[in-house]
Amino acid sequence: MPENTITQTDTLDFSAGRRRPRVAMLVFPGMTLLDFVGPHTAWAPYCDIDIVWETLDPVATDTGLTVVPTTTFDDCPADLDVLFVPGGAVHTHALRNDTALAFLADRGARAGYVTSVCTGSLLLGAAGLLRGYRAATHWATRDLLTLVGAVNSTDRVVIDRNRITGGGVTAGIDFGLTLLARMLDEEAAQVSQLAMEYHPAPPYEAGSPEQAPSSLVQAVTGMLADFSADLTAVLKDVASAGALRG
Amino acid sequence: MPENTITQTDTLDFSAGRRRPRVAMLVFPGMTLLDFVGPHTAWAPYCDIDIVWETLDPVATDTGLTVVPTTTFDDCPADLDVLFVPGGAVHTHALRNDTALAFLADRGARAGYVTSVCTGSLLLGAAGLLRGYRAATHWATRDLLTLVGAVNSTDRVVIDRNRITGGGVTAGIDFGLTLLARMLDEEAAQVSQLAMEYHPAPPYEAGSPEQAPSSLVQAVTGMLADFSADLTAVLKDVASAGALRG
Repeated sequence: MPENTITQTDTLDFSAGRRRPRVAMLVFPGMTLLDFVGPHTAWAPYCDIDIVWETLDPVATDTGLTVVPTTTFDDCPADLDVLFVPGGAVHTHALRNDTALAFLADRGARAGYVTSVCTGSLLLGAAGLLRGYRAATHWATRDLLTLVGAVNSTDRVVIDRNRITGGGVTAGIDFGLTLLARMLDEEAAQVSQLAMEYHPAPPYEAGSPEQAPSSLVQAVTGMLADFSADLTAVLKDVASAGALRG
Repeated sequence: MPENTITQTDTLDFSAGRRRPRVAMLVFPGMTLLDFVGPHTAWAPYCDIDIVWETLDPVATDTGLTVVPTTTFDDCPADLDVLFVPGGAVHTHALRNDTALAFLADRGARAGYVTSVCTGSLLLGAAGLLRGYRAATHWATRDLLTLVGAVNSTDRVVIDRNRITGGGVTAGIDFGLTLLARMLDEEAAQVSQLAMEYHPAPPYEAGSPEQAPSSLVQAVTGMLADFSADLTAVLKDVASAGALRG
């Protein structure tokens, strides 16, 4: 597919000779793609990023767009500046995947930053990486953090030692820029923010459960009820198995 | 790849029996994935979305993540509620692609809404779809809209009759929610906003050229200089060819 192959000159490189941090970003079937693409877009001009899953086969995300990993668990570098996990339907394929959990536990033990967006923190937690840490997740799943030994925070971006976790979906943009400032410097983060034209203008006051009308929160909680029930059941299974193993 | 195939129950459907608008979203090599994924995430629980390019071969985006189209120009439905075009490096593969321009001109002539994010408006314009319309694009390329007969606006989301265009990259989220309210109703847009936890908290006052320090604007303009020069050259070629044809 030469006509579809992009060259280095098609991509932006703002790193200007500085060392490019080594980042590994997990993908998995059922993931929420926007969790991933916010930080990926913020980091890509400055970082060397591996997109990791079990195989190089295309991975279907939760809205129907399919993405292609660039490396596998086996081939991913051992020592990372950043390990990142997106959220979404973590329970359908990722939480029960012992190979994925072992990969996260191994790389997370040595990574400079261990990070997630949305329900990705539940997956980090299932790999044993958030015990005793404050963390964020999607607002509809905040109660579940205790199942993996983490302490729920309602902050949009939570920094506890080298664990940096973002809230639901679009929080990944705020998270990504925040971490970029720590990886490199504030100028790099500001460059990325301007390049992404991130001067948001949400059409409604409806983006968090604290801000939205309670009737709207109830409606969305209802729409997510099956998702939440399935996720809770699988996470309880996995967490108790982990406790037995550990 | 059965283990990577997601089922309908992995995806969220908030449409509750209402007619699901038929949306076609273009992808192309060198596109900025976040332009696409913002509105795609907002719309997916309510809409039937085709992801369209010349072939079904994987398409490399500008940050190194590769995505897979779901249909081709030939197989895409003829009559659409929404035609959408993301931006990015439109000049490397899309602007010179006569088949893509013909597809956009054909579907755009009948679509309920003709839409874009970022430099996607330049591609819509090259297909002849923005002559005499006000439109948005990435801030660094605003001067180029006149080359395709459009009128530049600095608004983040620009609505002119049935043309709805967003500014750079992250403007796609605001654009996507705004259009969802028009396609369906404000409640749907608010549900999507809360489900995406879109209560943004940008770390800096640096997301637009009006807001950012001028030194930062100059720095990013410099970093984008090669990109802008290449885009300008190709767009001038294509626009003059279109004028000769038209």
